[in-house]
Amino acid sequence: MSKEITPRAQDYAQWYNDLVLKGGLADYSAVRGCMVIKPYGFSLWENMRDALDKMFKDTGHVNAYFPLFIPKSFLSREAAHVEGFAKECAVVTHYRLKNDPNGNGVIVDPEAKLEEELIVRPTSETIIWNTYKDWIQSYRDLPILVNQWANVVRWEMRTRLFLRTAEFLWQEGHTAHATKEEAEAEAKKMLEVYAQFAEEYMALPVIKGVKTETERFAGAVDTYCIEALMQDGKALQAGTSHFLGQNFAKAFDVQFLNKENKQEYVWATSWGVSTRLVGALVMAHSDDDGLVLPPKIAPLQVVIVPIYKGDEQKAMIDAKAEEILTTLRKMGIRAQYDGSDNVRPGWKFAEYEMKGVPVRIVLGARDLANNQVEIARRDTKAKETISADGMYAYIEKLLEDIQNSIFNKAKAYRDEHITPVDTWDEFVKVLDEKGGFVFAHWDGTAETENEIKEKTKATIRCIPIDGSGVEEGSCILTGKPSKQRVLFARAY
Amino acid sequence: MSKEITPRAQDYAQWYNDLVLKGGLADYSAVRGCMVIKPYGFSLWENMRDALDKMFKDTGHVNAYFPLFIPKSFLSREAAHVEGFAKECAVVTHYRLKNDPNGNGVIVDPEAKLEEELIVRPTSETIIWNTYKDWIQSYRDLPILVNQWANVVRWEMRTRLFLRTAEFLWQEGHTAHATKEEAEAEAKKMLEVYAQFAEEYMALPVIKGVKTETERFAGAVDTYCIEALMQDGKALQAGTSHFLGQNFAKAFDVQFLNKENKQEYVWATSWGVSTRLVGALVMAHSDDDGLVLPPKIAPLQVVIVPIYKGDEQKAMIDAKAEEILTTLRKMGIRAQYDGSDNVRPGWKFAEYEMKGVPVRIVLGARDLANNQVEIARRDTKAKETISADGMYAYIEKLLEDIQNSIFNKAKAYRDEHITPVDTWDEFVKVLDEKGGFVFAHWDGTAETENEIKEKTKATIRCIPIDGSGVEEGSCILTGKPSKQRVLFARAY
Repeated sequence: MSKEITPRAQDYAQWYNDLVLKGGLADYSAVRGCMVIKPYGFSLWENMRDALDKMFKDTGHVNAYFPLFIPKSFLSREAAHVEGFAKECAVVTHYRLKNDPNGNGVIVDPEAKLEEELIVRPTSETIIWNTYKDWIQSYRDLPILVNQWANVVRWEMRTRLFLRTAEFLWQEGHTAHATKEEAEAEAKKMLEVYAQFAEEYMALPVIKGVKTETERFAGAVDTYCIEALMQDGKALQAGTSHFLGQNFAKAFDVQFLNKENKQEYVWATSWGVSTRLVGALVMAHSDDDGLVLPPKIAPLQVVIVPIYKGDEQKAMIDAKAEEILTTLRKMGIRAQYDGSDNVRPGWKFAEYEMKGVPVRIVLGARDLANNQVEIARRDTKAKETISADGMYAYIEKLLEDIQNSIFNKAKAYRDEHITPVDTWDEFVKVLDEKGGFVFAHWDGTAETENEIKEKTKATIRCIPIDGSGVEEGSCILTGKPSKQRVLFARAY
Repeated sequence: MSKEITPRAQDYAQWYNDLVLKGGLADYSAVRGCMVIKPYGFSLWENMRDALDKMFKDTGHVNAYFPLFIPKSFLSREAAHVEGFAKECAVVTHYRLKNDPNGNGVIVDPEAKLEEELIVRPTSETIIWNTYKDWIQSYRDLPILVNQWANVVRWEMRTRLFLRTAEFLWQEGHTAHATKEEAEAEAKKMLEVYAQFAEEYMALPVIKGVKTETERFAGAVDTYCIEALMQDGKALQAGTSHFLGQNFAKAFDVQFLNKENKQEYVWATSWGVSTRLVGALVMAHSDDDGLVLPPKIAPLQVVIVPIYKGDEQKAMIDAKAEEILTTLRKMGIRAQYDGSDNVRPGWKFAEYEMKGVPVRIVLGARDLANNQVEIARRDTKAKETISADGMYAYIEKLLEDIQNSIFNKAKAYRDEHITPVDTWDEFVKVLDEKGGFVFAHWDGTAETENEIKEKTKATIRCIPIDGSGVEEGSCILTGKPSKQRVLFARAY
């Protein structure tokens, strides 16, 4: 094996870090909490981004770009919003360095102090709604369906590669509507887009739900979310879509003349997913040999590895590999041939398993002679030797199979880990011994929610929006009446 | 006309601003020097970015992402580099806000001061070379051919939409090589990529050259550039590619074991183009009626406008328009139908001229009856009524014609505005009365270059790399001997 990975059962957190670092996805950087996304990891993110971007455009959205900086006073305009973000933001106070006259090298020039501090955006509602004020006069200017791909900064104290970093990449949609109904429909529509993306591209089964007040986005009326389950039984919020009501329109005085010729505040949504999804992907599917990536977004879908003795065999195999490569690429398959001669085939096998390349083709001299190839799939490690004539149709189907199979495996695990419980003892036992989502009644108060969190570290991930769990019952902690089970879990 | 544009001849700067603002490309923002790139402008940038990104990938480059923040001490490692960027950088000093106990709202928390200030990246050589240190051990790790699409910040005092903004979007390539020759070849190769992109996609003729020492990138050994000419006779640097020698490798101690088993410092390049190119595009081609956009990158290539009386005609035209739209889109043409009923056709004509949509199809009831359409091109305003049967082939060819024609027009203007001069009086006269590039001898010293700049505001844009102007002569200012004419111009 090329590089050692800590077994998942031994130390899940270290297993995850090993995968990210040794799989070539990301590196730590010299800046606290910020990571370097390496080419292989960035290519994965590009594939995710491109798929999402197309889905946004297909649903009528356009991209735009707003400033990185937010004047400090803007953050304060929406009370809940500033409360949510003030504690973890990067603040720009000066705009120049100079040589220290006392010889201490380069220092901040005290004369270059900004009149008003600028915050590096943790999210862009405020700067965007300040802009929308100029764009919206009448109902004819609505809806505005804008998305932005950008970097944002939240000064998290405890960071983990991809899952929680001070700077991360994301998209943030910010839409403006003439009616409450339309804005609510948009927030729900984008939740569907996220769920579809997670399941179809990332092979990641998700539960669609709405957050409790405690877990809501700072400034939202309702936060919808998709929740996924990792292989250690912890949940991960994979995307959120917020119905913002008129909160930001009021904070930035954005009114429009409606069809009845009356001034009204504009209705808003915002929604986002981030590079955190890469972390979710790694945790949901990988194993002790490395990454397992869904073919639809894998940077490399097929790798060809030669096995040969001597230059003559090598030349023949090189030629055949080039032919296969050309055909695969014409089919739109992302393929590569690793003809490097400084490492053994076994090292290459381990390396591409580590990197989660879905399909490996092995080409040996005997294969060539027999007009056959050996094809291995990464997810199950199953190998098959097939006739070279049928290989292209086989590979096309295999990539689809792998995509489905990864999803089904994750879904089976997730479904097994939704446990309805009715007593406090059961609740604690399931959390501690089995993990996953615990489906239980709750009395609807923030007090109870907080008490449960303090006692067990479990939070309410969401109230499912598909109507499941709607029934009379009593709160697992307080015994007070409840009309709806909610999903609890320990979470990333 | 929908919106008034200041005529170019009356006030060039205001004409430019009107185009950017009223053409829907960008807006001013609440943050000094930062702009909002509006959806139409961003779509233009996306088309440019996608074309460039493909060219980078076709030449073997991969994308990655590095932190937004650069520790202050990193900037100082390369002497020329810090000298170049210290005077205009945004400095993060704190990581938290809090409520002022004295009731002054939200203030910076003095207890959340960073140990070391962070600079918002003005360019990423330092943070990237600090990372490359971990990626490079032996010649087998080379070359590294990485590009990054990112936002950067330079605290410019005088800003102009797209041309000079405090925050801008760009790409920055950062490559690492085992030999000087390979790094120099890479820097030149990327200059060719930029030139090809500018000419083929932006229809912007450029001169390829090398900068003088005075105009070189802070930290580079050689800066190659492409220089374009705007319609007011001022030059604009449209892209740069730097051969960095071993400067950054030495500053960050990045050495590798070469094939001779000796430690050696790594050789580097960096290269970038930015949203500034959007400004160049606007200035190079547009006219008093609005933007003129090259079809290859225009957000919208064809717009269909109906002319009708009454609902019956409208319904027939709507149906035909949808049919045309479907066909055009299948051909890969970006097309839209404007069937809105709240403005007149004349208003729409003006609006799409303003936005620089290359081709307009007008569909009237009589056209439908006669199986014909009226097709107008934006660049020359020529109109033609043709049979509907031949329209698709006609439009396909027309888009190509427009692309070429815009380029040829800009090239003719540029070529007319390269004036060889041999005396100081001529030099000043051409600069003042004709503008454009002045091709003159220079004695090769920074003193003379600076004196010419002080006297005339003209700078040396570049020394052409195609060998033109290589001849014996004498400096227009000092009369000292010179072996090479160089291109002077006033510039953006």
